[in-house]
Amino acid sequence: MTDISNLFSPRGSAQEIEEGLAFAPNFDAAGLIACVVTDASSGELLMVAHMNAAALARTVESGEAWFYSRSRQALWKKGETSGHTQRVIEMRIDCDQDAVWIKVEQVAGACHTGRRSCFYRAVPLGAPAGKPGAVKLEFHD
Amino acid sequence: MTDISNLFSPRGSAQEIEEGLAFAPNFDAAGLIACVVTDASSGELLMVAHMNAAALARTVESGEAWFYSRSRQALWKKGETSGHTQRVIEMRIDCDQDAVWIKVEQVAGACHTGRRSCFYRAVPLGAPAGKPGAVKLEFHD
Repeated sequence: MTDISNLFSPRGSAQEIEEGLAFAPNFDAAGLIACVVTDASSGELLMVAHMNAAALARTVESGEAWFYSRSRQALWKKGETSGHTQRVIEMRIDCDQDAVWIKVEQVAGACHTGRRSCFYRAVPLGAPAGKPGAVKLEFHD
Repeated sequence: MTDISNLFSPRGSAQEIEEGLAFAPNFDAAGLIACVVTDASSGELLMVAHMNAAALARTVESGEAWFYSRSRQALWKKGETSGHTQRVIEMRIDCDQDAVWIKVEQVAGACHTGRRSCFYRAVPLGAPAGKPGAVKLEFHD
């Protein structure tokens, strides 16, 4: 098992965090960091999930995507039960190190509904304020 | 001003949330939803930020990106001070409606460091566990 305390560097100054080489992820109050998952070949946005320190450490170490499920409150290897695993081709971190991006080889679909991507509905823009139910989603799959 | 209570639908069953047309975003315990921002032309991942209900409502209504800053604890229009605004070309929401994706026309750079994208450093994979500082970021800008 990964010794999490050894994998990450302490948070330094803003300059160090943004322009340095130290991997110092900033987990939120719930201990989580957002993770964007795109298809390494097509660039398509597949899903957004969250990682806690253990999930992030295991992903870095193994090259397979691990997440933390907020609803189930459990560490979770993507594809553990479905077989729809994600092999990580590249990982990036953002300026203030509070979001990560993984480019993956996705087996079958990323979405638990069976779709390739979780983002299969559009939110139309320009809906007038104060009209209940004015925003109706539109399917794009 | 947007009447937030009127813009969003109540959360229904899993089936309604995932396969329905009602816009019923799920804000986390801090009242936030993650937002992925990509370049509408190139598809490049520009940034990840958070929206509270007011930021989401204003974005839908105006077609300009608004966010909520966790560090400053304030509603914030992207480009308000920098001029680096984001015009939203399309918005999508994911299966369980706890993440949104906006495709934008980005003026200049999305990142406050001056770069086009916030994701300018890679996290090398396969670092051995238990070696302090074993993970060193690599610049890609």
